[in-house]
Amino acid sequence: MSVPVTVVKVGGGKDIDHQGVFVDMKRYLELGLRFVVVHGAHDEMDELSRRLGKPPRTLISESGHESRYTDRETLNIFLMVYCGKVNKTLVALCHRLGINAVGLSGVDGALFGGERKKALRVVEGARRLVVRDDLSGKIHSVNVDLLGLLLDAGYVPLVCPPALSEEREPINVDGDRAAASLAVALEAERLVILSNVPGLLRDKNDPTSLIETISSERLDEEARYAEGRMKKKTLAAAEALRGGVKEVILADARVSRPIEQALQHRGTWIR
Amino acid sequence: MSVPVTVVKVGGGKDIDHQGVFVDMKRYLELGLRFVVVHGAHDEMDELSRRLGKPPRTLISESGHESRYTDRETLNIFLMVYCGKVNKTLVALCHRLGINAVGLSGVDGALFGGERKKALRVVEGARRLVVRDDLSGKIHSVNVDLLGLLLDAGYVPLVCPPALSEEREPINVDGDRAAASLAVALEAERLVILSNVPGLLRDKNDPTSLIETISSERLDEEARYAEGRMKKKTLAAAEALRGGVKEVILADARVSRPIEQALQHRGTWIR
Repeated sequence: MSVPVTVVKVGGGKDIDHQGVFVDMKRYLELGLRFVVVHGAHDEMDELSRRLGKPPRTLISESGHESRYTDRETLNIFLMVYCGKVNKTLVALCHRLGINAVGLSGVDGALFGGERKKALRVVEGARRLVVRDDLSGKIHSVNVDLLGLLLDAGYVPLVCPPALSEEREPINVDGDRAAASLAVALEAERLVILSNVPGLLRDKNDPTSLIETISSERLDEEARYAEGRMKKKTLAAAEALRGGVKEVILADARVSRPIEQALQHRGTWIR
Repeated sequence: MSVPVTVVKVGGGKDIDHQGVFVDMKRYLELGLRFVVVHGAHDEMDELSRRLGKPPRTLISESGHESRYTDRETLNIFLMVYCGKVNKTLVALCHRLGINAVGLSGVDGALFGGERKKALRVVEGARRLVVRDDLSGKIHSVNVDLLGLLLDAGYVPLVCPPALSEEREPINVDGDRAAASLAVALEAERLVILSNVPGLLRDKNDPTSLIETISSERLDEEARYAEGRMKKKTLAAAEALRGGVKEVILADARVSRPIEQALQHRGTWIR
């Protein structure tokens, strides 16, 4: 990239104020900053899954990471919610706010090339299982050229999973880690991960226990406080930093001017 | 466009063999032809609408044209099916076949700019009604630059409705007419409309009644044979020809080598 980029991941919680995020982003776009946005949609995904009689099921890996069990039917619902309803609703919202957004999933132009995990070791209560029909995996390549083409033409890419596997099938990948892959591949200035929490908390029930700064050397240690979704965010932060991204900010999407707050390192600033 | 483009509309009927279409298209891509593909998804749309307890409802305009009644909930299902499941499934299929496809909806980069019909005069049995909450409309602009950017970089754009209204809200637009708008805006060499019929039939129950050639002057007259979905196809053909596209072929997607057949003017060739 000729001009440095900020990658912003916006969480998929129901209480995220997307309008607030994009209104704030617009001010920085006008100042010449470049953004690539990755969005989630987990709450809408859970809701539609339930409506279609396919309630969400969470897999917990041996290392304690949670992921959505994604069989064929779940993947189809995933395409509907992430790439369809949520992506296009956000793209239209951006256009109403004067942001020239283009929505892309990881399968478009093989934006996210990935690898399916053929056998997933999971823990279910006291049992250990191997799940083989899960259509999830990890990103190992990013089509930087496609993003560069759009960024150079003045578009703001609005990106979401799935990725495209080596067999060229859509696979579910974690959104936070997808954003980290993007940030690394784009040699982004920074990665901002916005969600419905203030950042990494020592005690997840106490917002005043926010960890304000973490040096990259201490990230592994501090990451022990992460629970649930926050585990993936600290993992994504570690991957981004290891890949050369200078700073990662885990910040709150629900505050006023969330982009400004994050750029001022309010939240958990990891560098 | 520097290199002439063929716009191919692929219908959304369950019996369409998408793999057959794209395998055939690949041969022509390798010969240097450029394609922009517009796809439908009406059968999947009907199915999901029913599953979600929102069975499809058809509006019939005073001039006899059928369209899907699209309230807010239907529009959300539309985004899920068209932009989500079907678009991304087709993009992944293309990648498996070696076609570097990028899926876009009309809202992305305001690819299809449109206008919502605020009052729709419809016929319901013997009654005439005015429908005011329908989120449908007509395309009046195409972002040719975005398509040019992708085509010049070697991507095959896979496009679907909705369009983006003047109020920057997604609106349902007819896929055949969207393809015609694209063909006109791209100054395409030709428009191919593939569906699950052999072309325009004098008697829709008799495949041997195919009208093989129509000159543009006689299109209005011959279009009187069109019924149901075919009405929109002949309308799209008329719009394409009026906009300067040299030929439109209404052809069968179910045959072997459907692109070859269409390029050889098998079906109804309108020029």
